[in-house]
Amino acid sequence: AKGPKAAGCGITEFVGTAIGDTIGLVIANVDAAIHEKMNLDKKYRSIGIIGARTGAGPQIMAADEAVKATNTEIVTIELARDTKGGAGHGCLIIFGAEEVSDARRAVEVTLKELNRTFGDVYANDAGHLELQYTARASYAIEKAFGAPLGKAFGLIVGAPAAIGVLMADTAVKTANVEVVAYASPAKGTSFSNEVIIMITGDSGAVRQSVIAAREIGLKLLNTLAAPAQPVTVPYI
Amino acid sequence: AKGPKAAGCGITEFVGTAIGDTIGLVIANVDAAIHEKMNLDKKYRSIGIIGARTGAGPQIMAADEAVKATNTEIVTIELARDTKGGAGHGCLIIFGAEEVSDARRAVEVTLKELNRTFGDVYANDAGHLELQYTARASYAIEKAFGAPLGKAFGLIVGAPAAIGVLMADTAVKTANVEVVAYASPAKGTSFSNEVIIMITGDSGAVRQSVIAAREIGLKLLNTLAAPAQPVTVPYI
Amino acid sequence: AKGPKAAGCGITEFVGTAIGDTIGLVIANVDAAIHEKMNLDKKYRSIGIIGARTGAGPQIMAADEAVKATNTEIVTIELARDTKGGAGHGCLIIFGAEEVSDARRAVEVTLKELNRTFGDVYANDAGHLELQYTARASYAIEKAFGAPLGKAFGLIVGAPAAIGVLMADTAVKTANVEVVAYASPAKGTSFSNEVIIMITGDSGAVRQSVIAAREIGLKLLNTLAAPAQPVTVPYI
Repeated sequence: AKGPKAAGCGITEFVGTAIGDTIGLVIANVDAAIHEKMNLDKKYRSIGIIGARTGAGPQIMAADEAVKATNTEIVTIELARDTKGGAGHGCLIIFGAEEVSDARRAVEVTLKELNRTFGDVYANDAGHLELQYTARASYAIEKAFGAPLGKAFGLIVGAPAAIGVLMADTAVKTANVEVVAYASPAKGTSFSNEVIIMITGDSGAVRQSVIAAREIGLKLLNTLAAPAQPVTVPYI
Repeated sequence: AKGPKAAGCGITEFVGTAIGDTIGLVIANVDAAIHEKMNLDKKYRSIGIIGARTGAGPQIMAADEAVKATNTEIVTIELARDTKGGAGHGCLIIFGAEEVSDARRAVEVTLKELNRTFGDVYANDAGHLELQYTARASYAIEKAFGAPLGKAFGLIVGAPAAIGVLMADTAVKTANVEVVAYASPAKGTSFSNEVIIMITGDSGAVRQSVIAAREIGLKLLNTLAAPAQPVTVPYI
Repeated sequence: AKGPKAAGCGITEFVGTAIGDTIGLVIANVDAAIHEKMNLDKKYRSIGIIGARTGAGPQIMAADEAVKATNTEIVTIELARDTKGGAGHGCLIIFGAEEVSDARRAVEVTLKELNRTFGDVYANDAGHLELQYTARASYAIEKAFGAPLGKAFGLIVGAPAAIGVLMADTAVKTANVEVVAYASPAKGTSFSNEVIIMITGDSGAVRQSVIAAREIGLKLLNTLAAPAQPVTVPYI
């Protein structure tokens, strides 16, 4: 398995790397001037840092598992327009913690989860799809997407954006789910070439909707270029 | 000719693909929840969808011919920061229609026109130019650029943006045209590396200005990399 | 040395090209309609233009030397989301001048300085670092970053952004410097995948902070891909 690497570059703050050019770091005591510029809550002297060139959804879903498992909070989630020339985002996620051991653990959990959360990312030369599902959303998902805590959550992304429109429509028609948010190149993304829909509801319905969106999205993406392959192993 | 492909992926909503990783789709009855999130006018139950990784101008010009030829309206035009690592935009264009046959026809016309409207897009490793001209602007051009309906319209794009500045100045000095708008990386683009000028006026003057801008733009772009080639066949 | 090229494309307004797909141009008498759309001060009939696909910091630092050396003013600095699929910016910089000879000279100085100011840009397949330092900031640095005139200035950039966070924290902990600004993917950048910190203070302290940030940044960037190399020759 392609788990996080911790090659040990000799820096205390380095935690590891993972798929998507993801790097995980911690700072035990953030400098006061930086602390202020980052608008961190004063109670958090330690932070965990996840940054990636490729992907935002996989990292946010992974961070959601991390906040469930550790004594940390998601402080900020920022989406760069990136994916190394692709159609989507990169990300910067900051965890706040009172103890550096908690921040480190959150970063470790996130790096480890990424192999799974890249499972339903499909890409070819023309674009990508991303599907995510959880039976119980936690604080990272709430922070990033405004989804209700503790409920099932599904994320459906299609790029180029036109494909995402049809995936969104298909998802909502498939089962009785509620639309949490709908994002497009000019609204709710960092000008990425994606349409993104976020859904909540009964866990069976959410999962069914995500799977239906995946099916139609793959067929459409494959009309533009060679068959899109999953980045790791599908989990939904 | 590289017309739209309709390989038939087995999905009713699929219309075809074209140059620029452009895909064309229709939805006969947009789901109510998606309809609301997309801010569609209630009278349009059907939509046509054009999305592309590369290009916004060519698709908008092509859509302009489509609205002239069909009973549809341009509902939204959104520009992603894309071109697959290049300096420009991708796009998402939504047509609204009361009947799905109209939406489908608009998408078909757009896909077919793209071969022409990519004719004066010139690219090399350092950047690109785009020139567009029509003797009579319709609703897509009005929606996207704020140009007056029924009048001649010219679009002049240079990337990197510095080249666009000189193309703009040259265009306006060449003939008696009116500047509709001027866009640059931080104003009026999705942070693309382009300067874009949109002009209107007498059709002869607009055409002359566009041609003069093309000439100087090509010379400048070719100082940075190998001679830029047209993507298809120049039409202006 | 890779100085500016002036291959002579036969256009009066062409000044030269340089590293980063940078092009330098002048316009002796900007057309009135363009002048207005660009929001130029009326006293400047001439402009110098610097545009690049790759880099904003190197061009701004170079332009800062140009305004010190010439009778020009920095009119606008705009940052495209670019670097040709990389994690950073491209740029468009406009100098205003009363005489075209001044505008031309400013562009020439900028193009010539770029070889130096790309010296502490380090890149590998996963991202890049940029370090800049001057003992005395002038008007381009003030305009772009809000740094105090005449004081030492340091610019520290890390991409992916996570690396920039640790570089920023390290810089501020290394010596007694003041944070001018802190930018991240969603605040103060054009959605680039960078964290950028700008510092001022005693020249020795600023230089020391920049060097410490460079050291830690290189170690981190090299955990993600092959060792990052300087684009030209380090100068700090």
